[in-house]
Amino acid sequence: MSRSPGRKQENHKISRELFVLTYGALVAQLCKDYEKDEDVNACLDRMGYSIGIRLIDDFLARSAVKKCRSYSETADVIAQVAFKMYLGVTPSVSCSSATGNEFSLILDKNPLVDFVEELPAERASLCYCNLLCGVIRGALEMVHLAAEVTFLQDRLKGDAVTEIGITFLRKPEDRKHRRN
Amino acid sequence: MSRSPGRKQENHKISRELFVLTYGALVAQLCKDYEKDEDVNACLDRMGYSIGIRLIDDFLARSAVKKCRSYSETADVIAQVAFKMYLGVTPSVSCSSATGNEFSLILDKNPLVDFVEELPAERASLCYCNLLCGVIRGALEMVHLAAEVTFLQDRLKGDAVTEIGITFLRKPEDRKHRRN
Repeated sequence: MSRSPGRKQENHKISRELFVLTYGALVAQLCKDYEKDEDVNACLDRMGYSIGIRLIDDFLARSAVKKCRSYSETADVIAQVAFKMYLGVTPSVSCSSATGNEFSLILDKNPLVDFVEELPAERASLCYCNLLCGVIRGALEMVHLAAEVTFLQDRLKGDAVTEIGITFLRKPEDRKHRRN
Repeated sequence: MSRSPGRKQENHKISRELFVLTYGALVAQLCKDYEKDEDVNACLDRMGYSIGIRLIDDFLARSAVKKCRSYSETADVIAQVAFKMYLGVTPSVSCSSATGNEFSLILDKNPLVDFVEELPAERASLCYCNLLCGVIRGALEMVHLAAEVTFLQDRLKGDAVTEIGITFLRKPEDRKHRRN
């Protein structure tokens, strides 16, 4: 498994509809495989993590983003560069803690649920888009930022917006300190 | 399940990398679920079929393609309009039968396998991209064209190109005739 040479010159865009329907097929398959919503959510998160740790190289190469100097800057890059690049949308960002390590990405519209109206009653605890949390967590880990990433609100569950919460677990300085 | 209003005005493009990695996660999950490659292939085909019968509306609405008057024209539209629109690539088309109902879509490069170097030895019969065959089959069925769609060559299996074979099973005139 490796990236093919020369892909940078190519068209990196595809139609969202095919992705959205393929993602739906993935979630449906996991719902067949696992009875409990929690297990589906955990599996989507794990899959997303595996994707994130690979996608980060692509992101750094194509975005030309420089090293972020704060959690706030990192959250902005995720929303304004990464979401835009990979999903074609830009969530708004808000800092939700006095300690400055908790952020929310707020999506008025979630591009992954275009074809989904609402969750079936028996799947009320499903975090349909949990793959995204895993992707963010995996990608952050590869730039040495440990984070918890979870859905705080979900329009599929009747909330007014979709909100992804990112809690950075320790400051880079702490890590450096521990290493020395 | 229905499409949200207003999506036609939106950005329909997303990054291919995220799709490719998500598709890889789907195939990997099915390989966990099914021991036999044939079962994975069948499942991917079924999933693709479900996607195709939904994607066709989106395709007809956005492509503004008119009714095709021949199998040859249909094959060209699949290659030049649909593949371009959904995967950002344009396969070449060749007619491979004297009866004029068998076509090949030939992909020098398969956009779905960007991150895949080769199939594991124990998965030698896997049609990694079989979802595509199902999508084409499902979409064609919705415009009253029955077809068999299969991979004839696959670069993942060491072939020089990736070739998708489409065999149209009966002419529209035949159907009309039978109905009358």
